[in-house]
Amino acid sequence: MSAQKSILTGIKPTGQVHIGNYAGMIRPTLDLMASNAGGENFLFIANYHALNSIGNADEIRRYTHEIAACFLSLGLDLEHTNFYRQSDVPEVFELTQVLSSVTPKGLMNRAHAYKAAVDANAEKPSAQPDDGVNMGLYTYPILMSADILLFDGGIVPVGRDQIQHVEFARDIAGYFNRRYDTEFFTLPEHSVQENLEAIVGLDGRKMSKSYGNTIPLFIDPKTRRKMINKIVTDSKLPEEPKEPDGNTVYELYAALAEPAEVAHLRARFEECGMGYGDAKRILADKLDELFEVPAARFAEYMADPGALEAMMAEAARGAKEKAAAKIAGLREIVGT
Amino acid sequence: MSAQKSILTGIKPTGQVHIGNYAGMIRPTLDLMASNAGGENFLFIANYHALNSIGNADEIRRYTHEIAACFLSLGLDLEHTNFYRQSDVPEVFELTQVLSSVTPKGLMNRAHAYKAAVDANAEKPSAQPDDGVNMGLYTYPILMSADILLFDGGIVPVGRDQIQHVEFARDIAGYFNRRYDTEFFTLPEHSVQENLEAIVGLDGRKMSKSYGNTIPLFIDPKTRRKMINKIVTDSKLPEEPKEPDGNTVYELYAALAEPAEVAHLRARFEECGMGYGDAKRILADKLDELFEVPAARFAEYMADPGALEAMMAEAARGAKEKAAAKIAGLREIVGT
Repeated sequence: MSAQKSILTGIKPTGQVHIGNYAGMIRPTLDLMASNAGGENFLFIANYHALNSIGNADEIRRYTHEIAACFLSLGLDLEHTNFYRQSDVPEVFELTQVLSSVTPKGLMNRAHAYKAAVDANAEKPSAQPDDGVNMGLYTYPILMSADILLFDGGIVPVGRDQIQHVEFARDIAGYFNRRYDTEFFTLPEHSVQENLEAIVGLDGRKMSKSYGNTIPLFIDPKTRRKMINKIVTDSKLPEEPKEPDGNTVYELYAALAEPAEVAHLRARFEECGMGYGDAKRILADKLDELFEVPAARFAEYMADPGALEAMMAEAARGAKEKAAAKIAGLREIVGT
Repeated sequence: MSAQKSILTGIKPTGQVHIGNYAGMIRPTLDLMASNAGGENFLFIANYHALNSIGNADEIRRYTHEIAACFLSLGLDLEHTNFYRQSDVPEVFELTQVLSSVTPKGLMNRAHAYKAAVDANAEKPSAQPDDGVNMGLYTYPILMSADILLFDGGIVPVGRDQIQHVEFARDIAGYFNRRYDTEFFTLPEHSVQENLEAIVGLDGRKMSKSYGNTIPLFIDPKTRRKMINKIVTDSKLPEEPKEPDGNTVYELYAALAEPAEVAHLRARFEECGMGYGDAKRILADKLDELFEVPAARFAEYMADPGALEAMMAEAARGAKEKAAAKIAGLREIVGT
């Protein structure tokens, strides 16, 4: 075992990748994993978690390919990262079954996503608490625990709203270890990444597929420039000083550019002489610069799904071996 | 596809096999499968269902071996039966995950076993409804549905109290087929076997491990005879006529002997001249006769676990292939 802990994180293929995903999850994950040279990295595409919301095979396949192509285009280091889909390691479902047998139902009743659904039903006049809740949603904290525990994920980077996932995985690992008087599962730790937060969308609200306010990550630069030009700003004239904080153009730039560049744009907002048109051009230029090369690579990956599948299969080999070994050990302990 | 439907049934390795299991499940299953020459048979050992109640690997392994050895000793026809453990077809857990994503939580809330646990908690002064309920218990109807649907089990023989299991599997198959606009899963049918009922135990209550009133199926004949001799009867003298119905010795004999033999013993109860000692001897002789040859075979199987494991692996080959093919089709449909 290496002295440094492993890092494990997953991403759900439930929509077209946008720059909010990039700034909030993809880039910090790539940075974090690049900095974990002594440890081991696990990055997976949670295609079975996606089934809880998407019942269309073509969408799941496309989003899965897009995420894979996206990480590869942005320079994911396959030498030092186990990169796989849940479907590449079906052992995770067997582990989910075993973990279910040690997990009290009361724990699931406390899961944030489930409680949010129950609360939403409570506000409807004639709804039952569990209306619209499928068992995949209700049990997903167990699958998520299995995702982590299958690889003894040591550190799981999360946003503040996801701390509970890792706490549940710790709890469930503990239930198992105590029932079988073993230390078979490593208790994972969360690491809150303050930058794993949503960025602002084109309309000033949080960037989210459900608001329709996203800038797709790999998109024709002209279309992107048009989207940026449509961002609504106030009516300040070029010669007036402007407030950068809360300004959508500034905040998007701040989420993507280097600190020195951000400081420079901030100064231009606060001084006089820059119109919003200039700011939008600076933002669009930055996005062109950031994504020109990755976008070309992305297009190549997406143009040859067979080659992409082959790369993914190859990338998953290490994870498959580790999963098989862990499940062999699990069966030894539980007697199956 | 054969015109005749397949038959599928499973047994949980949660205790030493006793003659109640034999009369209530094992013998009727063997008969039913032997009569299904044109169809296909699936008989499995539900070793993951057992984890909900047994947290000891050695017990699970021993009970699993005992059940396998038991069926083989009693003449299970491996030529016409797919015989496997759940662990031989881990595809069942992946299917469980997919089925979870289409199953409303409300359905699980109506499961008999879960409701019984909630009702029991309602009678305790300070218990919460879900106290003592683990997620394996709560979700087992989904795993059970996967057990059936993975092999397109056509007919599932059940006792009256298990009809709901098959109804749930039909419901869940329907949810999936509708979501994906497919007929991928065959809707199973239950077949109520009136003889799949509990038989009477040594103390006159239902024979059950939890009452400690069982006669193990393969046991030293002398010990068995002693157990039978201790059965409590009333104090009628040999010369008095006796009521066979409700008499433990008669009822055990009736559950195991041929109809003509049963009619003969019934007549001897109702006429005069037979003491309970005679009846007990007739029952013990019958058990000796029934189980002498299978018990010898059983001992051989149990004496060589390696050979038994090899036989089980070989017996499971067909089921493994079918499971892999079904899951490949499933992934095609859901997009994973």
